[in-house]
Amino acid sequence: MYEKKKYSFQFYYFIQQFNIVFIFKQTLKIYCTQNHKQSQGFNFNTSSWRSIYACIYASRHQRNNKRFFFQKKKDKNLKKGLTSEEMENLNCRLLLGNTYHLAYQPGGDFLEKVGGLHKYMNWKYNILTDSGGFQMVSLSKLCEITEEGVRFSSPVDGSEMFLRPEDSVHTQNQIGADIMMALDDVVQTTTQGERMKIACERTVRWIDRNIEAHKKQNEQNLYPIVQGGIDFELRKYCLEQLISKDAAGYAIGGLAGGEDKQDFWRIVNLCTDYLPKDKPVYLMGVGYPEDLVVCACLGVDQFDCVFSTRTARFGTAFTKYGFLKLKNSERQLDLGPIDDDCGCETCKRFSVSFLYNTIGKEETACHLVSYHNLYYLLNLMKNLRQSILDGTLQQFVNNFFKNYYKYEKKIPQWIKDAMEAAKINLTFTFDE
Amino acid sequence: MYEKKKYSFQFYYFIQQFNIVFIFKQTLKIYCTQNHKQSQGFNFNTSSWRSIYACIYASRHQRNNKRFFFQKKKDKNLKKGLTSEEMENLNCRLLLGNTYHLAYQPGGDFLEKVGGLHKYMNWKYNILTDSGGFQMVSLSKLCEITEEGVRFSSPVDGSEMFLRPEDSVHTQNQIGADIMMALDDVVQTTTQGERMKIACERTVRWIDRNIEAHKKQNEQNLYPIVQGGIDFELRKYCLEQLISKDAAGYAIGGLAGGEDKQDFWRIVNLCTDYLPKDKPVYLMGVGYPEDLVVCACLGVDQFDCVFSTRTARFGTAFTKYGFLKLKNSERQLDLGPIDDDCGCETCKRFSVSFLYNTIGKEETACHLVSYHNLYYLLNLMKNLRQSILDGTLQQFVNNFFKNYYKYEKKIPQWIKDAMEAAKINLTFTFDE
Repeated sequence: MYEKKKYSFQFYYFIQQFNIVFIFKQTLKIYCTQNHKQSQGFNFNTSSWRSIYACIYASRHQRNNKRFFFQKKKDKNLKKGLTSEEMENLNCRLLLGNTYHLAYQPGGDFLEKVGGLHKYMNWKYNILTDSGGFQMVSLSKLCEITEEGVRFSSPVDGSEMFLRPEDSVHTQNQIGADIMMALDDVVQTTTQGERMKIACERTVRWIDRNIEAHKKQNEQNLYPIVQGGIDFELRKYCLEQLISKDAAGYAIGGLAGGEDKQDFWRIVNLCTDYLPKDKPVYLMGVGYPEDLVVCACLGVDQFDCVFSTRTARFGTAFTKYGFLKLKNSERQLDLGPIDDDCGCETCKRFSVSFLYNTIGKEETACHLVSYHNLYYLLNLMKNLRQSILDGTLQQFVNNFFKNYYKYEKKIPQWIKDAMEAAKINLTFTFDE
Repeated sequence: MYEKKKYSFQFYYFIQQFNIVFIFKQTLKIYCTQNHKQSQGFNFNTSSWRSIYACIYASRHQRNNKRFFFQKKKDKNLKKGLTSEEMENLNCRLLLGNTYHLAYQPGGDFLEKVGGLHKYMNWKYNILTDSGGFQMVSLSKLCEITEEGVRFSSPVDGSEMFLRPEDSVHTQNQIGADIMMALDDVVQTTTQGERMKIACERTVRWIDRNIEAHKKQNEQNLYPIVQGGIDFELRKYCLEQLISKDAAGYAIGGLAGGEDKQDFWRIVNLCTDYLPKDKPVYLMGVGYPEDLVVCACLGVDQFDCVFSTRTARFGTAFTKYGFLKLKNSERQLDLGPIDDDCGCETCKRFSVSFLYNTIGKEETACHLVSYHNLYYLLNLMKNLRQSILDGTLQQFVNNFFKNYYKYEKKIPQWIKDAMEAAKINLTFTFDE
């Protein structure tokens, strides 16, 4: 029936149950249901981990700091972020911070001096930091990548700056995140040919410099990032090279950048096939609820994306029946909650009509919808994981898609193909 | 010692203790300590009240809706408001809504249809609505006041509109606020001479039309607004006329508009001397923490002001030692909370340094400081009221001012004069 090997995602929920969120220098045995008939244990050596990881759905720092830099260009209407207390109440256990922005303010030296970002922002759970490379490339007008590192003009004052793998890792050591990302050579997902090959090979060469620079091997975990765009051979090359480094976990980068969904899921599937089954796999920058369900079935453990809160600011709420656009005039008379079955504070207190009348005008409304969307996603991941533990993943997935595409009455072909690869039968039919 | 007669402010705390926030058609006897040696009861007939009232420190709708209209002019950077859940947790029991903005969206007819604003925004405590006159005059380019009402151009689409006392009261009946404000003729505080006299007399003539139009006398309470600027004779005339209407409560309007502080407190004092001792007195648009302490001593029960949250957005936090400007560079190294003695969530979780690095860049920081400032004010009022019940008001006031002006080492003359009028001796000296 259902035999794809890698289903280690959403471990933090599992860990939470036993109240051992912070594991350090300890060997932990975690059981995952791998098919409907049989349970099997993975043996994790957590000696180099502070904890095992979660779906990253709480990029508070990412969103806000990024917006700070964008705001002079296009994003003047600052909308509401969530407080760390709210993220805690949402059972989020892993936040994402942008190294690039944190390095600018309050600064790596400062953060090191005050005992790291956890302490500074009073967040007692996990933090992941990116390498800073992505912001650098996307925010800078001038950017030149050489073997030594990346030369770019500061988006703040235009001065020339230089970032090497050693610099990125040093700053991430100062920040003290539980998961650090290796600096890689970032190119557009759909890039083909020589440039992609160069980027891929440089990413592989740089991983040794990243590892070499990492001074807190027993406290912080460094993930290499698998690159290679949508080129299977480059991905395989990159996978083989990075896997040989025996890292604490692995990220799949360079996706969700405009590629065809058929290419997207096949690359994810290739990576999860190759990557070690006893290490967490983090798919960067993904995604929509359906992406999470599909990729979790393909063996991904962690995700991050700004979509849930960005789309909330534009008035779109997640529901089990797909997206609800709160600005449509027909919403004005809907006195029910966004989702009848949702247990979040927004759904408990406010009607769709109230949100219709306030979204886009009161920042509080954006906040309420952001809160709902994060609740929805964390709850989705929790239930998805539980269904694996219970051996009911196939039912869960069928139920999810039957509801999710209720109005379209049609499942996209790429999802059908991906589910077939994951050996999950979609057996339902839509109601007429 | 201390014999000023009117100390009925902050009743809702008292009521809260007995868990009877919603009182309706019930006679309630409330005791207030009127001087240091003697307790005396006021007999309130609450038959026309839904509840007794609070310091209004939660103008969520006011702030946000107002900003919605302002935003195209000057206030593009929407910062964070608080959710009604947070206001509830702050023990706020009275919110202020702007009739003018609510009438525009979602509209009076709509609100009536869905059962009123309480239900629509899921707020189970009290709501106060203004008359709409202030926004009309302040937001409109064209505005002409006649005996019939106010003719003005809509700030939304420029079309000509007309607002009579009957219209304002009708909309407020539809909204269903616990406290409604009568439409008056609003002029600049510092206006002198004939125009002020006309405004004052028209306000008096209009009160009958306001009362006549009020269709829910047993469910909603209508406050007349005492006008007259800083002219004692006009104030007295207005007071005598309005008091004869035997309203549920009274507001003092037309202050905090740029007048001298010596004029300000003397007018407040005049009004509280004249107004009935068994009715709540609401001082509109006030104010700073020191204003609240002074005016409460002079006999005011209710206040509202946007200052606490507006100043938070600009990075100023309230403390017992006065204002703390979070953007000063010296704050970067301050790893303690805003106020060591504060019990709010912001002070429990975040350092001044953290706020320094985020205020003005992350809306979350504005939110955290707004939350702190509201907590500070509600706590200030709670303690102030408790000191009256305990017969320790004089100590409380001395302690407050000694801390509040710790750095200036000097109390403004107007406060000394006002405290003398309130028969409160300021006996402390500042530490050298």
